[in-house]
Amino acid sequence: MKDNKARIDLAEYKLRSAWYSIKKMYHEEAKKYGVTHAIGFALLSIHPKNGTPSTSIGPIMGMEANSLSRILKMMEEKKLILKKTNPNDGRGVLIFLTKDGLSKRELTKKKIIKFNKLVNTNITKKNMDIFFKTAETIKKLASEKNILNNEK
Amino acid sequence: MKDNKARIDLAEYKLRSAWYSIKKMYHEEAKKYGVTHAIGFALLSIHPKNGTPSTSIGPIMGMEANSLSRILKMMEEKKLILKKTNPNDGRGVLIFLTKDGLSKRELTKKKIIKFNKLVNTNITKKNMDIFFKTAETIKKLASEKNILNNEK
Repeated sequence: MKDNKARIDLAEYKLRSAWYSIKKMYHEEAKKYGVTHAIGFALLSIHPKNGTPSTSIGPIMGMEANSLSRILKMMEEKKLILKKTNPNDGRGVLIFLTKDGLSKRELTKKKIIKFNKLVNTNITKKNMDIFFKTAETIKKLASEKNILNNEK
Repeated sequence: MKDNKARIDLAEYKLRSAWYSIKKMYHEEAKKYGVTHAIGFALLSIHPKNGTPSTSIGPIMGMEANSLSRILKMMEEKKLILKKTNPNDGRGVLIFLTKDGLSKRELTKKKIIKFNKLVNTNITKKNMDIFFKTAETIKKLASEKNILNNEK
């Protein structure tokens, strides 16, 4: 991505390009273990012992049902998950991790913790707090109804 | 997206969810004018007077050739752009904006400037600078080769 400081969409560009870099890094790493960034992310969203209702995973991941069911299908084919009927809801499905799913979940966690440590070594706690707070403010502004139309 | 402060993928999550909110805001706005977020973004990447080689737009947008050519096709159908042979490169194509393309480009710019002003009213310059610097550091860390594997 061309890094042009004069671009007017700077806030969006900086957020997008930083996020893309993280996503790409995790994805490259995941490929070494025969999975994808999305699979790693889904593994984290499934409770290691109790399993997780299939309908709860989408909201945790911020992903739509269609995309998620493609990922879950892939995970089933790779024998990372098992689907069981939910004992508390006969029409619902609980997703459980297999032994391999569990071990890849642990691996994903380790990689994320490793990256977090790197981030915390290179960025002060104070700046990281400002970064999170600012991202949150931008998100809130962008989420306000009709913010681009009102005359305020 | 479920906002769970205990999640371990916090840096990625915060970046992604702030970016998604901006993207969604621009997209909702673009729809009112019969275009999309991606089209607005592409309009900005085309020089209003001199046009832009079709091969330069992808790198500016950080987008792959396939996705870009789908967007350019849509823009041609909506009569926002015209394709002309590049006089400096007989095999190349220059993309020009039509009158409507130009006016939607101006509108896109106005909306982005409006959002930037809102951001600057709600976030101090100092915090915004720290935000940009921190996003840049995270991006650089994530872009280092084998950062998740070395034992440092």
